[in-house]
Amino acid sequence: MEKHWDVIVIGGGPAGYTAAIRAKQHGLNVLLGEKEELGGTCLNRGCIPSKALIHCAKVWQTVKNAQRFGVFVSEHQFNWEEMQKWTQQVVQTLRRGLQLLLRHHGVTVIKGEAKLVEPDKVKFETEKGESTVSAKALILAMGSSSVKIPCEPEAPVITEEQALFLPSLPDSVVVVGGGASGVELAWLFNALGVKVTLVEMLPQILPTVDVEIAEGLKRSLERQGIDVRTETKAEKISAQKGKGIVQTKKGQIEADLVICALGRKPNSEGLSEIGIQISPNGSVIVNEWQQTSLPSVFAIGDLVHGSGTAHGGMFEGERAVKAIVEKLSSKTLQRGDTKPVVPICVYSEPQVLSVGITEQEAEKIGLEIEVVRFPWRALGAAIAVGEVDGFVKVIAEAKTKRVIGIHILGHDVSNLNGEVSLTVMMEMTPQEAVKAIRQHPSLNEGIKEALWAMAGLPLHIAKRPERGRW
Amino acid sequence: MEKHWDVIVIGGGPAGYTAAIRAKQHGLNVLLGEKEELGGTCLNRGCIPSKALIHCAKVWQTVKNAQRFGVFVSEHQFNWEEMQKWTQQVVQTLRRGLQLLLRHHGVTVIKGEAKLVEPDKVKFETEKGESTVSAKALILAMGSSSVKIPCEPEAPVITEEQALFLPSLPDSVVVVGGGASGVELAWLFNALGVKVTLVEMLPQILPTVDVEIAEGLKRSLERQGIDVRTETKAEKISAQKGKGIVQTKKGQIEADLVICALGRKPNSEGLSEIGIQISPNGSVIVNEWQQTSLPSVFAIGDLVHGSGTAHGGMFEGERAVKAIVEKLSSKTLQRGDTKPVVPICVYSEPQVLSVGITEQEAEKIGLEIEVVRFPWRALGAAIAVGEVDGFVKVIAEAKTKRVIGIHILGHDVSNLNGEVSLTVMMEMTPQEAVKAIRQHPSLNEGIKEALWAMAGLPLHIAKRPERGRW
Repeated sequence: MEKHWDVIVIGGGPAGYTAAIRAKQHGLNVLLGEKEELGGTCLNRGCIPSKALIHCAKVWQTVKNAQRFGVFVSEHQFNWEEMQKWTQQVVQTLRRGLQLLLRHHGVTVIKGEAKLVEPDKVKFETEKGESTVSAKALILAMGSSSVKIPCEPEAPVITEEQALFLPSLPDSVVVVGGGASGVELAWLFNALGVKVTLVEMLPQILPTVDVEIAEGLKRSLERQGIDVRTETKAEKISAQKGKGIVQTKKGQIEADLVICALGRKPNSEGLSEIGIQISPNGSVIVNEWQQTSLPSVFAIGDLVHGSGTAHGGMFEGERAVKAIVEKLSSKTLQRGDTKPVVPICVYSEPQVLSVGITEQEAEKIGLEIEVVRFPWRALGAAIAVGEVDGFVKVIAEAKTKRVIGIHILGHDVSNLNGEVSLTVMMEMTPQEAVKAIRQHPSLNEGIKEALWAMAGLPLHIAKRPERGRW
Repeated sequence: MEKHWDVIVIGGGPAGYTAAIRAKQHGLNVLLGEKEELGGTCLNRGCIPSKALIHCAKVWQTVKNAQRFGVFVSEHQFNWEEMQKWTQQVVQTLRRGLQLLLRHHGVTVIKGEAKLVEPDKVKFETEKGESTVSAKALILAMGSSSVKIPCEPEAPVITEEQALFLPSLPDSVVVVGGGASGVELAWLFNALGVKVTLVEMLPQILPTVDVEIAEGLKRSLERQGIDVRTETKAEKISAQKGKGIVQTKKGQIEADLVICALGRKPNSEGLSEIGIQISPNGSVIVNEWQQTSLPSVFAIGDLVHGSGTAHGGMFEGERAVKAIVEKLSSKTLQRGDTKPVVPICVYSEPQVLSVGITEQEAEKIGLEIEVVRFPWRALGAAIAVGEVDGFVKVIAEAKTKRVIGIHILGHDVSNLNGEVSLTVMMEMTPQEAVKAIRQHPSLNEGIKEALWAMAGLPLHIAKRPERGRW
């Protein structure tokens, strides 16, 4: 293996492998180091297996509710092990694909644990021994790890990652943490007949999402049978007769199993030793070019964000490579892109899609906004498939009338993210955005209806609904 | 009822009711006449009931294939009558909603058959007798009707509309006509176990859609068991022992029932008598403002297109009203919008989404283009749900690199129409369009991957696939 590289990327998750491929495409000589499996948390223990499992649970729900649509099923059952097999098959297919992809792109991959020796030197511990290599620039993409709250050693507690690979289903769980992955796990286990309590310390689940959307989802999860407890801080998990007891100021919650879905901790251990600035919560501090306090070292993905998104990390991988290309050709770095618009999806049922500023964020910064809503129950495409839960909420800046946030709760809305991201990124006015004709019947009409309402021309609603109730 | 109106709209389908609501919103005094049920073909006998039935068939398919996802169903059956009930429930909900909507918007509705007496006078025959009213402008939105090929009187032949309301399912059908509704009906009946032959006169099904997409869908329909016969012209339908016999130059095709899905004929009878120009195929000739040869009479929707789309008709309704508003305030009509970008969806499985120019259209007009494809089998979101059939095809003008067509074959792709329409309508370059971050994992990433490939930066494929095979 060569000793000197243009770029070394440490960590083969979505952020890291995107950076490695992009670096190669820009003509750089790149080494990608990964200590475990390629694909990182997302592919191996996160988005992908959870999406595959959630799909299995949605098939189960479709089977259970099939009668409504003229399909009669007398005997039916699900097999968690078989769902696990499907999930593993998906993960393996994608992992194999990623290996091939990196080979086709000509990215050299080294399997081994990386240790930063100097700002331009990395020591890899591989099966074949140690090897020290150097590079003109480093991109750190070591990701994040699950965290747990204090718990007694014998308490049945697992992390959000482990929850995806349970050998068998418990009768009851407490999910501690109402962020995206906590909500998805709560939905998944409840859909499969497990008694679920979802505990969130803050006043709303999905704390970064628009309040109305989060409240709408909470009501929907409760209707589905989940015990959702907000403003409830889990302080400790103890054990009693093989069960887990979640201690809160409002009393104890008992279950067979406790799942910690408390957000994630950046894997930044040891980085400060070579002079990289780390914030108190453990995340690596970067500028608009993903540059750390060491000018030739860049950091991307969960290492910067903790609980970031895969697509946000991929974007940062691209951004870091762009900066390195400029730097290596001795150009002065131009001001970076403005804050990117990163969509957030929650794959429960109903789903959440959230892009741009929320009503609460606007209030906080004193920005005057206009808000409109369109309920799915007024839309043909939603009525035709019997899924009318939820609504579209569009937020525009009052002065300019430009759309700066779109937040959606509803069945199958995650695939609307491209349309929503384009609209918010380009800060279109409603008049501009409605010029694109949407297919009838389709969910996209729901967005158009909200935009029309904002332009004062609601079509399939007579008035703007006051709140996101439906 | 008032005798004099600003605008009379004839026909309460999507084009007509949109025009009526918009006219009202622009402060015009508007009368909407409908001889049958509000909602037109789309709501009562077209898009909506077919979408609801197709959803039932998709539930059935999910139940049949549930084992793959760890869900075991020992006994299952479907009941066509119950599927019909669901469909009727959907239609009735939407019909009731539309009535309320028009009332809330303050649109006066008259139920009765309209006859144009003079360019500004309409005679309505209602239950309570005749009534003649006049208006400053007329908007004609009388829609279209199914057509049949010559058939013996006793032959079991029905139209595409009637096929949605069959009292019971036949064992075998021949669907004559491979346009969108023919393909959807063929898919629907095949999914429910009916032996289906799909007959299309032209060399490809979906003749207006990109050839690769149409060929990909054909292969997929064949794999699902449909006998697809292109370049086969049905000339006559005869009867034999209760069965229908479709006569073609390539031989006879026998089935219990023959469904004619041959496109539609504009309901333009009698319009030429008051001086409105009609083209030889029966469609009303209009300019870019939907204005007919009589300056105060406008025509929209299927009356202009025959087999148009609901959303295209709704757009035309808005356009006609805009022109009337300008006209009534004595402004000179500005040049109309450029040709609108109207998405086309086919709700089979896989689905088709087609927006903008096709490769064949570009060739015909001698436009140099660049083409890229991205197969769903390379995308995590598609692999996670086990639906990897199909691909995304993006077409850009070679000179300007602007995206002028996006054509997609795949599972659940119809809801990508907003993103695709915005991109094509704004003629974004790939570099502009990829700036919007797409959620991972989601189908929207497939569009981004194709755009990246066009910009020379494919991420999850190493090379551009040569053809839409997968």
